[in-house]
Amino acid sequence: MLEKWKIKELVKFALNEDIPFIDITSEIILPSNLYGKAYFLAKEDLVVCGKPIVEEVFNFIDPETKIFWQVEEGAEVKAHTKLGFIEGNIKSILKGERVALNFLQHLSGIATYVRKFTKKLAPYCILLLDTRKNLPGLKILQKYAVKIGGGKNHRFSLSDGILIKDNHIKALGGIEKAIERLKEVPHYLKVEIEVKSLEELKILLNSEAPVDNVLLDNFSVDELKEAVKMIKNTKPHIKIEVSGGISLENIENFKELDIDYVSSGTLTHSVKAVDISLKIETIYNY
Amino acid sequence: MLEKWKIKELVKFALNEDIPFIDITSEIILPSNLYGKAYFLAKEDLVVCGKPIVEEVFNFIDPETKIFWQVEEGAEVKAHTKLGFIEGNIKSILKGERVALNFLQHLSGIATYVRKFTKKLAPYCILLLDTRKNLPGLKILQKYAVKIGGGKNHRFSLSDGILIKDNHIKALGGIEKAIERLKEVPHYLKVEIEVKSLEELKILLNSEAPVDNVLLDNFSVDELKEAVKMIKNTKPHIKIEVSGGISLENIENFKELDIDYVSSGTLTHSVKAVDISLKIETIYNY
Amino acid sequence: MLEKWKIKELVKFALNEDIPFIDITSEIILPSNLYGKAYFLAKEDLVVCGKPIVEEVFNFIDPETKIFWQVEEGAEVKAHTKLGFIEGNIKSILKGERVALNFLQHLSGIATYVRKFTKKLAPYCILLLDTRKNLPGLKILQKYAVKIGGGKNHRFSLSDGILIKDNHIKALGGIEKAIERLKEVPHYLKVEIEVKSLEELKILLNSEAPVDNVLLDNFSVDELKEAVKMIKNTKPHIKIEVSGGISLENIENFKELDIDYVSSGTLTHSVKAVDISLKIETIYNY
Amino acid sequence: MLEKWKIKELVKFALNEDIPFIDITSEIILPSNLYGKAYFLAKEDLVVCGKPIVEEVFNFIDPETKIFWQVEEGAEVKAHTKLGFIEGNIKSILKGERVALNFLQHLSGIATYVRKFTKKLAPYCILLLDTRKNLPGLKILQKYAVKIGGGKNHRFSLSDGILIKDNHIKALGGIEKAIERLKEVPHYLKVEIEVKSLEELKILLNSEAPVDNVLLDNFSVDELKEAVKMIKNTKPHIKIEVSGGISLENIENFKELDIDYVSSGTLTHSVKAVDISLKIETIYNY
Amino acid sequence: MLEKWKIKELVKFALNEDIPFIDITSEIILPSNLYGKAYFLAKEDLVVCGKPIVEEVFNFIDPETKIFWQVEEGAEVKAHTKLGFIEGNIKSILKGERVALNFLQHLSGIATYVRKFTKKLAPYCILLLDTRKNLPGLKILQKYAVKIGGGKNHRFSLSDGILIKDNHIKALGGIEKAIERLKEVPHYLKVEIEVKSLEELKILLNSEAPVDNVLLDNFSVDELKEAVKMIKNTKPHIKIEVSGGISLENIENFKELDIDYVSSGTLTHSVKAVDISLKIETIYNY
Amino acid sequence: MLEKWKIKELVKFALNEDIPFIDITSEIILPSNLYGKAYFLAKEDLVVCGKPIVEEVFNFIDPETKIFWQVEEGAEVKAHTKLGFIEGNIKSILKGERVALNFLQHLSGIATYVRKFTKKLAPYCILLLDTRKNLPGLKILQKYAVKIGGGKNHRFSLSDGILIKDNHIKALGGIEKAIERLKEVPHYLKVEIEVKSLEELKILLNSEAPVDNVLLDNFSVDELKEAVKMIKNTKPHIKIEVSGGISLENIENFKELDIDYVSSGTLTHSVKAVDISLKIETIYNY
Repeated sequence: MLEKWKIKELVKFALNEDIPFIDITSEIILPSNLYGKAYFLAKEDLVVCGKPIVEEVFNFIDPETKIFWQVEEGAEVKAHTKLGFIEGNIKSILKGERVALNFLQHLSGIATYVRKFTKKLAPYCILLLDTRKNLPGLKILQKYAVKIGGGKNHRFSLSDGILIKDNHIKALGGIEKAIERLKEVPHYLKVEIEVKSLEELKILLNSEAPVDNVLLDNFSVDELKEAVKMIKNTKPHIKIEVSGGISLENIENFKELDIDYVSSGTLTHSVKAVDISLKIETIYNY
Repeated sequence: MLEKWKIKELVKFALNEDIPFIDITSEIILPSNLYGKAYFLAKEDLVVCGKPIVEEVFNFIDPETKIFWQVEEGAEVKAHTKLGFIEGNIKSILKGERVALNFLQHLSGIATYVRKFTKKLAPYCILLLDTRKNLPGLKILQKYAVKIGGGKNHRFSLSDGILIKDNHIKALGGIEKAIERLKEVPHYLKVEIEVKSLEELKILLNSEAPVDNVLLDNFSVDELKEAVKMIKNTKPHIKIEVSGGISLENIENFKELDIDYVSSGTLTHSVKAVDISLKIETIYNY
Repeated sequence: MLEKWKIKELVKFALNEDIPFIDITSEIILPSNLYGKAYFLAKEDLVVCGKPIVEEVFNFIDPETKIFWQVEEGAEVKAHTKLGFIEGNIKSILKGERVALNFLQHLSGIATYVRKFTKKLAPYCILLLDTRKNLPGLKILQKYAVKIGGGKNHRFSLSDGILIKDNHIKALGGIEKAIERLKEVPHYLKVEIEVKSLEELKILLNSEAPVDNVLLDNFSVDELKEAVKMIKNTKPHIKIEVSGGISLENIENFKELDIDYVSSGTLTHSVKAVDISLKIETIYNY
Repeated sequence: MLEKWKIKELVKFALNEDIPFIDITSEIILPSNLYGKAYFLAKEDLVVCGKPIVEEVFNFIDPETKIFWQVEEGAEVKAHTKLGFIEGNIKSILKGERVALNFLQHLSGIATYVRKFTKKLAPYCILLLDTRKNLPGLKILQKYAVKIGGGKNHRFSLSDGILIKDNHIKALGGIEKAIERLKEVPHYLKVEIEVKSLEELKILLNSEAPVDNVLLDNFSVDELKEAVKMIKNTKPHIKIEVSGGISLENIENFKELDIDYVSSGTLTHSVKAVDISLKIETIYNY
Repeated sequence: MLEKWKIKELVKFALNEDIPFIDITSEIILPSNLYGKAYFLAKEDLVVCGKPIVEEVFNFIDPETKIFWQVEEGAEVKAHTKLGFIEGNIKSILKGERVALNFLQHLSGIATYVRKFTKKLAPYCILLLDTRKNLPGLKILQKYAVKIGGGKNHRFSLSDGILIKDNHIKALGGIEKAIERLKEVPHYLKVEIEVKSLEELKILLNSEAPVDNVLLDNFSVDELKEAVKMIKNTKPHIKIEVSGGISLENIENFKELDIDYVSSGTLTHSVKAVDISLKIETIYNY
Repeated sequence: MLEKWKIKELVKFALNEDIPFIDITSEIILPSNLYGKAYFLAKEDLVVCGKPIVEEVFNFIDPETKIFWQVEEGAEVKAHTKLGFIEGNIKSILKGERVALNFLQHLSGIATYVRKFTKKLAPYCILLLDTRKNLPGLKILQKYAVKIGGGKNHRFSLSDGILIKDNHIKALGGIEKAIERLKEVPHYLKVEIEVKSLEELKILLNSEAPVDNVLLDNFSVDELKEAVKMIKNTKPHIKIEVSGGISLENIENFKELDIDYVSSGTLTHSVKAVDISLKIETIYNY
């Protein structure tokens, strides 16, 4: 799902950022003819995500390094699992270590969190969506990690989905004005409208608007119940997405609702990295 | 401290990522002649960080938008504070909203966390350092946010500081081998060595190594006490940095130690975004 | 609709391509202190498209040049109309002349053709769509010209629309296999399926597939009539797009059909440039 | 003749343009382990041009795809010819299909047109030249296609040829002023001057100007006869290029003229793509 | 003669190279509100070259800095001349100081050397040419400095001039083989052939080759005399360029020769920087 | 020591600069099926530097060319030594010849000069340092060549070393003001201060400033003696760097001084290229 050429650009940027000139410590400390083997060690339970990026980091630095993975992308592993091995020139391995781990810990952090979240949602047939609240520059990778974790991607960008948000509605002076413009929507896109209150929802449902999805933002659980009922009674084909302060902790509250999607910026804007380190196992001179 | 031309590159990347073609919703929904004013609203207590990036985002999209800040970069503000206003074409404002907030929430998230952390450390004259565990592509901005929060930057990259880490030592077959190479260190750089145990520390202290800083990694508090004593007794000029699982929660444990620096990857690899939103205040047609 | 920063990149590329070093003729022939005024002259009837790009070309070369347009973007003008004036240093004007005209003639060529086409379609309420058959590198500009001409944009890229084409179907071994996977479609996207025969269409219509749009490709007019009848009788909510060898010349044949969209690669892959030239009007030394 | 590294840049740009994130249809519809074989099919008589770009497109997406051509670059093929085969992962093939065809159809379109044109000119020993009226960004490829078609390249850019055009002459206030500056011409470049009338030509021929080539622009056939006679009588070493509204249709009119070159912007600014498609032949799972 | 947008790219590259993150010394040492004035001081006699680049360096860092030049580009100035003043924020001035001087000293170094050289050649009507022996990345700037110094530019690149060199001739197996191919030369380019001996020259002169310029490489002065005589006697229209170990020191030896051009790689590949420094004159706080 | 990916960028830039479109001479003159072997010939005594860049140049143009070196990077070779062979398509070899030599002659020029310089310094245990006076764009390569030559690198950029220069001191109003700010220095960097006179040195030595290195700039030999004595008597741990007009010619004067480093901009800003050429040895057709 990740185009290789896009990874290359990100890896190049990250490595130039971390090595503007040379790796001065390795340059001084390490002989050039030192070869060895190291492994990536999970230091907590986690879902593995980012293997293709790790490969690209080391391939970029030194195509003669070789990586042997022990686990699948997306696998749930226990603490102390060796995720994979890297073999090659030690200087090359140490040059890439930090950048590779930075990617791997971040993406596995997302996948791990999303996996827990989607497991909680699974029994209720509610799908977990990401948002456009990605960290700048990491959108493609973060969206990929959400997928690996078991979530679904909402639109990638402003160019590929119609989502009429509160600010659009305020700018136009009301949801009715927005609805009028919906005939301009390209035929290949659905329409989603964010509503902030039961009143707004009512206007929407009473309109002729060709709306496919509704985003109920920051509704209380009681309001959500009411909202769902209104939708099901009038326009049952509309899919329901719920957002606003939803997290792994409070997700239980939403489980009885007959909704389709829950979306959360937390998946991408507040990621906790998982703990992975690179350990040298063997050294041999050539 | 942030070179404007570097911000521009990051902003350009982030905007191209979020608008590969056009903002299709605004294109359809909003008339071109809609102007208005909106404000950035802090939805929790936070330390503001990222104003120059927000400015650049909107300047990039539309140089005719104007921003008026109400608070200083680095200010501690309460929830519900209006951080600043933006005035201009509504389409331009909404195009940049998400990317601007993504930067602002992330950087303010860092600054807010670092501020709390450094306040706890201040009475003990311990300085808080960041690490190279930055999110790929965001190094410069994250380091900047650490500074704004009150922390200090450790080296930026592999090219600008000597830090001999456990993997270097393992690769060489012992700390003694690393020490031998220290005469190659450029005259403008100090030397820091990471030690993982009291044994390693002992070898280091018994050597002639021209070491300026020691990084005690993953020591228990008791080991730290012992380590500090050893250093003070033998090479009191060496500065002491402590790392490994240190966070805002457990920092109290370290307060009695006579150390110089605490460093933590959490500052940059596990950032919780703070909650800021953009609210339209007024709309006027031109 | 065109993000300025995207135009800048294209203009920069085009100018570097046309002036890798210096404009050697102007360098030798023209004094530096020559200023003057020139105008863009339509040499045939046309629809104007590309003004923002022309502005950017000259702004890029020399921000002191000034352009005064006489016509609106999208205006239909007669041969011999002066589209606008440019005033400034003659060297700057001549450096940018060819690149500016290359953009302007191409985009106006698209807009002119599309305008004629959409006028023919208008009485029958059929909309004209572009395709992904754009000239590489010019996608954004060509899509923009189609809009200016009066057409509608189909999806911009592989990332922003679901279109299951004949090769997908062949690869899967039949349209039924494709239909099975449709539950994976993101909730914000509609689904369009290309069919190549009445048989395929029948399978599709008999299925439970959540299809929003059908693309009837390379059907004869008689087949189209039959296909439309089938769709209207069974799934009248499905929108109908027709493609395959449709052009301004043969469009009359399709006018009686109850279809929604006609799409044509010709709009972008076989553009005839319209004839526009730049004429110097006055010269004055400063 | 095409530097590989230049093709790579263009291919990268085109693919990023067409896949800003992922190929969402293939992602959903196609299994990852589907392999197969497809062929490029000429759907009309054409001259093949663009094989190296097609190769690069697929190599960029997936180096494991393999292409086997059945025809030479520049070959004249009949409708229904299989130009070549591509074998590999079906997802990779479908991702690159459109971009590859966009290049191939455009360049073969140029080559096909140029081939017809040069064949008509061949008996009269008149060479066909392209111009700087290339589509922005496609200059190198278009110039290459002209060569493959049998034409000759005029200068590539403003940096590599001296061509004094009507606007230079107008800016200077007359052809005499331009001639004065010709001593500044670098010794490795010839000089070409565009003239618009017999009067201008007369001034030029009466001067001492070291002119190597004359471009007779927009002369009628009768004027051309007169012009050629004047040149042959006075400065027979001057090569004669003719331009202005010359196309495949009216080229017969020029055949009796004793001229050296005919140049036409049509070759590159108004290209009709030829019809080529990619057909899947076999599918096999691995 | 220097396109501004090309300078910007070079300046950006140079500044990113010199400030990958921040100017750490100024960051620590200097307050942000320090403003002042400094001047560029010539510390030896020199020809000034590089003013537009210096302007761009400071404009790039901080558009609020202002530069006031005291001398013209290309002026010959004495040691101790103040070339110009820069006023603005001291941090901005010091950030750009070194990069600006690196450009200015190098380009003025070229211009100074070239000026001396061309003055020696002037009485004999011999022009001084540069070569393609430029420092990689600095071609445009070095060619510009040669012009400012009073020299002439030979071709810029492999794409804009025909120069058949010894290796071409060796590869083909003799000058005769090269000559055969000359009918393929584009009509807008002249032809120059390098010859290494009187024998080669003889073959060339006896041929029908349409040669415009001859490059006599590494001939002794006596051989040169003989060569010139041969050329003047047989093909006097051919221009004569002489190269090979010619420098300011030995140029006297060549003065009696009836040649047109002398070319020397020394102009660009072995540049001695002239001594210029930036001196702070006044400091004022704002 | 040179990251391969950084070389690639430089090589790409240099080749695009030298071949914006095509190698027009080779295109015309040389058949495509000509293969052969050529060698790099040292035409003077020199230290070889730049082999990895030469390899990358040819690898970039044509990965099928093969290079066989006869000498080690950093080797001292005599005039007439064949440095290595290149085998492959002749067009590819000739396309890259000049750019490869431009790099090789420049970097070997640096290494050769530095080698002579460091040999003179060796008996006195004085190390030779480079400066930030590098040619813009060539910093990494020049620093590398200094190392190969036997010198040591001073800081690479403004981001990786603290060097308080005369302009900082002037801006602050005296060395005392600068000293006050030194507590802000990051713990991983040493501090170097430039002093211009014995008076400044005295103030520095009398202060509490945590200075690690002193740069004595433009002192006479007598002043240097006095300065060294002062430093050794008061703060003998401070390392002493001397700069200002020091070159290979006058270095003898400094040999008796008890200093640590000599630094010279000449190493990088005034490089004399060494003479190396590429000679075709054999040609064979395939």
